[in-house]
This record gives sequence, structure tokens and C-alpha cells, in this order.
Amino acid sequence: MLLNFITGNRNKFDEVAAIVPGLVMMDLDLPEIQETDPKAVIVAKLKEATAHHDGAFIVEDTSLTLDCLGGRLPGPLIKWFLQTLGNDGLHELCARFGDFGVEARTLIGLAEGHDDIHFFEGVRRGTIVAPRGDKDFGWGPIFQPDGETRTFGELDREEKHALSMRGEAARKLAEFLTHG
Amino acid sequence: MLLNFITGNRNKFDEVAAIVPGLVMMDLDLPEIQETDPKAVIVAKLKEATAHHDGAFIVEDTSLTLDCLGGRLPGPLIKWFLQTLGNDGLHELCARFGDFGVEARTLIGLAEGHDDIHFFEGVRRGTIVAPRGDKDFGWGPIFQPDGETRTFGELDREEKHALSMRGEAARKLAEFLTHG
Repeated sequence: MLLNFITGNRNKFDEVAAIVPGLVMMDLDLPEIQETDPKAVIVAKLKEATAHHDGAFIVEDTSLTLDCLGGRLPGPLIKWFLQTLGNDGLHELCARFGDFGVEARTLIGLAEGHDDIHFFEGVRRGTIVAPRGDKDFGWGPIFQPDGETRTFGELDREEKHALSMRGEAARKLAEFLTHG
Repeated sequence: MLLNFITGNRNKFDEVAAIVPGLVMMDLDLPEIQETDPKAVIVAKLKEATAHHDGAFIVEDTSLTLDCLGGRLPGPLIKWFLQTLGNDGLHELCARFGDFGVEARTLIGLAEGHDDIHFFEGVRRGTIVAPRGDKDFGWGPIFQPDGETRTFGELDREEKHALSMRGEAARKLAEFLTHG
């Protein structure tokens, strides 16, 4: 079975495709609704896709929440924080509060029909540090997972897959596709 | 001419209606796209409205940008900051940076046809303070406009209209509707 991964982000696609077989990148330009609930964002995109196209689809949303912002922001708005503050700005924000705790959460939604949506989640806690390493994209260089001395930016791809929130969600999806 | 103000916010409606005659509140539930450019948010809503309804429409977006976040956040994402951090949290954020400078910007978009959109803007700079007063909604209690010793939360409605970013944008719209 072919599975369409709706994303414009080649890095995200590669990470999930390394774990889930039969994946096809589908760069539909769906509007991202302004929502802090990742499930609502994913459901809106999947319904839009299944309304106009045949097939099976996945959408992923990875959100980052800072303990210093009540553990609720930026959440799915991380894209806009990164765009405006950058990794240095995010690190400085935590430094101002003296609280570097962070949680990264990937949610993958799978739609095989219009009303049939399954979710797969992966969660990693970590610490926001000054940027280190260039092997990852986005906020990877400032995210040091708990139990690690290196940031995502310093880990090889396979090492990151093994312990990242996206890897965990992708493994749950792969398991579901294999065994139902 | 009747003019439909697309908003679910009665306070915003009342403020603009106090200045612009012939306004009708129209609570269309249009999805808010995730964008940090207010014009893009407004254009998307107006195009959605004019595609499905006849008439003239206005949409307003009021964004708040904090100097301590590079003058670019939260911007149109203020709704989510308020919802997650509250006024106390916003004030604390500024306190952590030791920078209380803030700019409030209202943009009103007017669509009389599908491709004919005019914009009217009002801008106020101010200082973020600990919450005072209950005469305003949203972040009004923590916004003290430059040149004032009171917050929006402490000003009477007419006083606020006279000096607020929304009042300024509404007066420009009223002027345009009267004299073209």
C-alpha cells in the first residue's frame, strides 16, 4: 500500500520514511489553521486531503513546549517562534526565565477514509541549550534530549531516529500498518 | 450602505461601530490561518466571505508586538499568548527581559468585491504594566499607551476610542466611506 505523507518538509519526510515503508511525499499546500491543539490542525488537513483525493494519508505535527511558558507555548506555533526569534532567541528566552525544560511531541495522524483517523504519538523531554551541531534542522541544535550529552544537531541520523519523538511516533505507525 | 463586520468579538464590534455608521455584526466562523502577516489573515477571510456572500465586508486584526521578542511576536498570535499565559504571564515575560516596550496595531480590511480590498491602519505604542482596571477586554489592563498614566483597562470607552489603535483605524475607514 502506498501512503501519502502530506508535508513540504523534506527532512521530516526522510525521518518518517526511514521507518515507515511505502511512503510518498505529497506537497499539498493546505492552509494551516491557527490552533494550539495539534489534533485539530491535523484533522483539518486530513479532511481537506481526503475530500479531494483518493488514497491513504498521513500528516505530522511536531510541537515544542517550553516549561518557562507554562508548558503550553509555543506548541504548534513553534514555526513562527523559530522564524521570528531563531534558535538563539529561543535559548535566550529560557535563559531569561532561568528555566530550560522543554518537551517535544510528535503526533502523526493517519486517514484511510474521511472519518477514520488514527493517531500515533511520540514524546521526548529535554533541555534547551545554546546551539550545537549542524546535523539536524529547525530547533534540533538547541534540543538536548534527557539522558544525552549531545543535541539533536550533534547526533547522526540513525541515532536521532532511535530516540526522537518523531522516530517513536513513526515506529508506532509502522507497527499499526503491519499488524493493525 | 450596510457593512458586514465579520467578527465573533462583541467588544471589537462595539468599538468600531461607535465610529463607523451602518455596521452589522456577522459572526461567520471562518478558519484563522496560521500566519504572522496580518494582511494575509485578513485577505484570506475577506476572500472566503466574498466568495460565498454578497455585500461589503470588513475584517479587523489587532496584533501586539513586544519589543523584548524582537518586536515581531506575538503579533497576530496574541490570542494564543493570552489564552496560555494570561495578562500576568505577558507582564512577567517582559519583566524577565527588563523590556516593557510594546506596539499595538489594528488593521481593518474592507472588501466591496472579491478583488477590491482596502486597508486602514492604526498604531499605538505603549508600555506593558501589571494589570490595572477592568473597563477593557483582552490585554487592555496591561497596556498603558504612551503619554497616558492609565491603562486601557482604566479608560472610559470614549477616552479609549479617542486614542486607541482600533479607533484610529476605524476613523480612517469612516473617512474613506464618507469621502471615498
